Amino acid sequence: MTNKLYDTSLSLLTDLYQVTMAYGYWKSETAEKEAVFNLYFRKNPFNGGFTIACGLANVVGYINNFGFSKKDLRYLRTLTGHDKKPLFEEAFLDYLANLKLSCSVEAIPEGTVVFPNEPLVRVRGPILQCQLLETPLLNLINFESLIATKAARLRLVADTDQLLEFGLRRAQGVDGGMTASRAAYIGGCDATSNVLAGKLYDIPVRGTHAHSWVMSFDDELQAFDTYAQVMPNNVTLLVDTYDTLQGVRHAIETGRKLEAHGHKLAGIRLDSGDLAYLSIEARKLLDEAGFQDTAIVASNDLDETIINSLKQQGAKITIWGVGTKLVTAFDQPALGGVYKLAALQNESGMDGAEKWSYKMKLSEQAIKISTPGIQQVRRFRDERGFLADMIYNTEEMNGSDRPSTMIDPMDFTKRRRFDANQLYEDLLVPVFQEGKCVYSLPDIHAVRARVQTQLAGLHPGVKRFVNPHTYPVGLEKSLHELKTNLILKLREAASQ
Amino acid sequence: MTNKLYDTSLSLLTDLYQVTMAYGYWKSETAEKEAVFNLYFRKNPFNGGFTIACGLANVVGYINNFGFSKKDLRYLRTLTGHDKKPLFEEAFLDYLANLKLSCSVEAIPEGTVVFPNEPLVRVRGPILQCQLLETPLLNLINFESLIATKAARLRLVADTDQLLEFGLRRAQGVDGGMTASRAAYIGGCDATSNVLAGKLYDIPVRGTHAHSWVMSFDDELQAFDTYAQVMPNNVTLLVDTYDTLQGVRHAIETGRKLEAHGHKLAGIRLDSGDLAYLSIEARKLLDEAGFQDTAIVASNDLDETIINSLKQQGAKITIWGVGTKLVTAFDQPALGGVYKLAALQNESGMDGAEKWSYKMKLSEQAIKISTPGIQQVRRFRDERGFLADMIYNTEEMNGSDRPSTMIDPMDFTKRRRFDANQLYEDLLVPVFQEGKCVYSLPDIHAVRARVQTQLAGLHPGVKRFVNPHTYPVGLEKSLHELKTNLILKLREAASQ
Repeated sequence: MTNKLYDTSLSLLTDLYQVTMAYGYWKSETAEKEAVFNLYFRKNPFNGGFTIACGLANVVGYINNFGFSKKDLRYLRTLTGHDKKPLFEEAFLDYLANLKLSCSVEAIPEGTVVFPNEPLVRVRGPILQCQLLETPLLNLINFESLIATKAARLRLVADTDQLLEFGLRRAQGVDGGMTASRAAYIGGCDATSNVLAGKLYDIPVRGTHAHSWVMSFDDELQAFDTYAQVMPNNVTLLVDTYDTLQGVRHAIETGRKLEAHGHKLAGIRLDSGDLAYLSIEARKLLDEAGFQDTAIVASNDLDETIINSLKQQGAKITIWGVGTKLVTAFDQPALGGVYKLAALQNESGMDGAEKWSYKMKLSEQAIKISTPGIQQVRRFRDERGFLADMIYNTEEMNGSDRPSTMIDPMDFTKRRRFDANQLYEDLLVPVFQEGKCVYSLPDIHAVRARVQTQLAGLHPGVKRFVNPHTYPVGLEKSLHELKTNLILKLREAASQ
Repeated sequence: MTNKLYDTSLSLLTDLYQVTMAYGYWKSETAEKEAVFNLYFRKNPFNGGFTIACGLANVVGYINNFGFSKKDLRYLRTLTGHDKKPLFEEAFLDYLANLKLSCSVEAIPEGTVVFPNEPLVRVRGPILQCQLLETPLLNLINFESLIATKAARLRLVADTDQLLEFGLRRAQGVDGGMTASRAAYIGGCDATSNVLAGKLYDIPVRGTHAHSWVMSFDDELQAFDTYAQVMPNNVTLLVDTYDTLQGVRHAIETGRKLEAHGHKLAGIRLDSGDLAYLSIEARKLLDEAGFQDTAIVASNDLDETIINSLKQQGAKITIWGVGTKLVTAFDQPALGGVYKLAALQNESGMDGAEKWSYKMKLSEQAIKISTPGIQQVRRFRDERGFLADMIYNTEEMNGSDRPSTMIDPMDFTKRRRFDANQLYEDLLVPVFQEGKCVYSLPDIHAVRARVQTQLAGLHPGVKRFVNPHTYPVGLEKSLHELKTNLILKLREAASQ
């Protein structure tokens, strides 16, 4: 994996039913049948208007390293059914031992703004292989997209202020922390406190001292002075161990000594209490003492709502440390991505000359009905920004320009027509072709920059937090018709 | 690490400020000063009345493998301050290169019920080392304890029903999934869908097929029949791909063929719709057809509240598949554990002959004031169960029996006296002595069994979900006095 943390085989990082289904396909001799699966989500997180695609780098690493080890197979051999007999026969385990992935994968690049029902990843290949990839792909894309989106929201509120990610201690496990640090930086944070993430992902790291440093001395001033002597080029002093404003006065004393030695007091940090009031009072004390350049850093369970409120109250904070609420996406800790079969190769002769048998999952809830087809997303734009995204079936309409009609999936009477000369971009790009990686991963800083360029393309109404405007996403007319006809056919068959 | 996932050095899995403070201690020649830190949380998660301690196995693995690699040090060498000069001098990096942990660690065993303010882990040793361990210990203990607690709540509701953990696809990263599977099993789940967790942690795995299996066939009955032929000893059929009750009828047809070949239809699974209504109707169909032994499995965003409601509605479900809501602890995705300095070795001559200088963090909020002392937790009980937990300072009162008085930390007039012959257990046990592991980790099944024994010791009122009774946790009288005097002293000093 490109996250470099894992040295063990992760090919068993999947749900058991993927392996039992794989066995079923192999045993019924349909394992090599070509299938197409789409990975998408149904609702933007945090009641927001957009989502940031993230996690593809880890997907590339996962697929590149795919392969069952001898230990993996030894473990699968021990699994038994209700009758205590083995679940899998030996010839199947031999098949897995020799399995090389030959799937083709297309995906929307990391850092792109995406919307519900758009395929973030499309996997095409032998159905057995597509199935084995379902769980790890969902795990990797769901979480990183969630955190990158949360960070992008924080960046919108923080505007030009600095945003530091401090969440490792409350993250969901080691990788919950590592992956969150990566996605948080991509989404818009400036740095992390997580040193291992700094080392492995090339993210700037930041940090000075905690309360325990202050508590380990007989008094606060001595603690500040010692810190400043030891590391004069990295002095941000935490002032709330005992009494915050008294702490600011101590920091100023230390700052004077620093200046006398040609250094500067970079900042003070508030970690408790009324951050609006305390930052305003601290700013006054600092300014009166001539420390106009000393920044005020704040932390303490911050999220975009609290930062927004503090700014409205005139808080004098320009550096925000965000932890738990960011790295766990506290108000919605999971993105509900799904991975659905959308087409299956036809056996020769069946359904006439059609190559594909289109597939979908029915549901009583319209939002849970999947869309068939080998899908691509066309994003129309003009010189001011993005206009609409149209999902189309590449079998019906290839990449070339032509006029097209987009239909709102929730109201088929809402239609929008685009001329052949309308500017557009097709979002999914080739990542693997028949098992071979054909995609060059951009570096993390380029992905981070892409998020901001992408957000600039969105109308402000889509980016607001309260009742955001719904960005238009529709189905190309022939895909809409394909879907409608298939629903009618399946509902009729199901009622028989 | 005992979770076996990580093969890279994780010694940089910490916040940068731990390293800058370490540098400060080293530089000011206090690095070897003996310190005591306590890891504890302030509030039970999920508005519940108890928490399950979990994560110690990973802590043991982490400490056993601690040590900075050449690559780690090379990375630290690249870090610079505001003046672009290195943060750390070479001699400090040499010190880290040769650092071997010599801390002593005591901890409450995994699977124990614990309460706010009780030290789950106590680290004693050179302050520099204690500090470096803060972030990884919090990361490991916070998350596993959170998930084990969530699973224990689900087990209370599920009673004797089976409980399966299905969460990998929505978990917070790879390790978010792996760690959650381990903690969920410990907390009370019977099995997981996560095959890698099954392999690495010896957890039973379960799974059959998804909607995509059904969709890959021309009709549902053919899909069911094929699955049953392929894997007759593991047949639980997912019946809601098109129409749920029609699906049940198809499953019955397949079940008849299975029986004709000497196998049985183990179960059917419902994954959408009104689970109360559908399970009752499905049960009728199955029973009328003679499939009384076929279980009904349900999944679809379940948590303890929904399972409780379904049971009250008479749902005929006996196997519950729980995913997202469990593995992300959806309604509270972080446990707010903290790690606070509680005592520091006195320099000879200072404070008279006292060995320890006791330490605490003040706060305007009483709940955020830490407790000083080298703490142990004494759990008093009688033959019916647990009575109360008393936190005491081992320097004031050693492990021997004696009458003691416990004081409610929120109301010092509430006191409780225990005779010398009262049954009790001291909860923290030695795990490391001066860097050497002295604790033999119980296997995962023993830890899981301990959770149930522990919960049996709690009064039902503490285990209820709505307004649970607060289990009594207090401070031993001399520790209460130590804390009170220290607060007064610090408040006076802070106001000067």
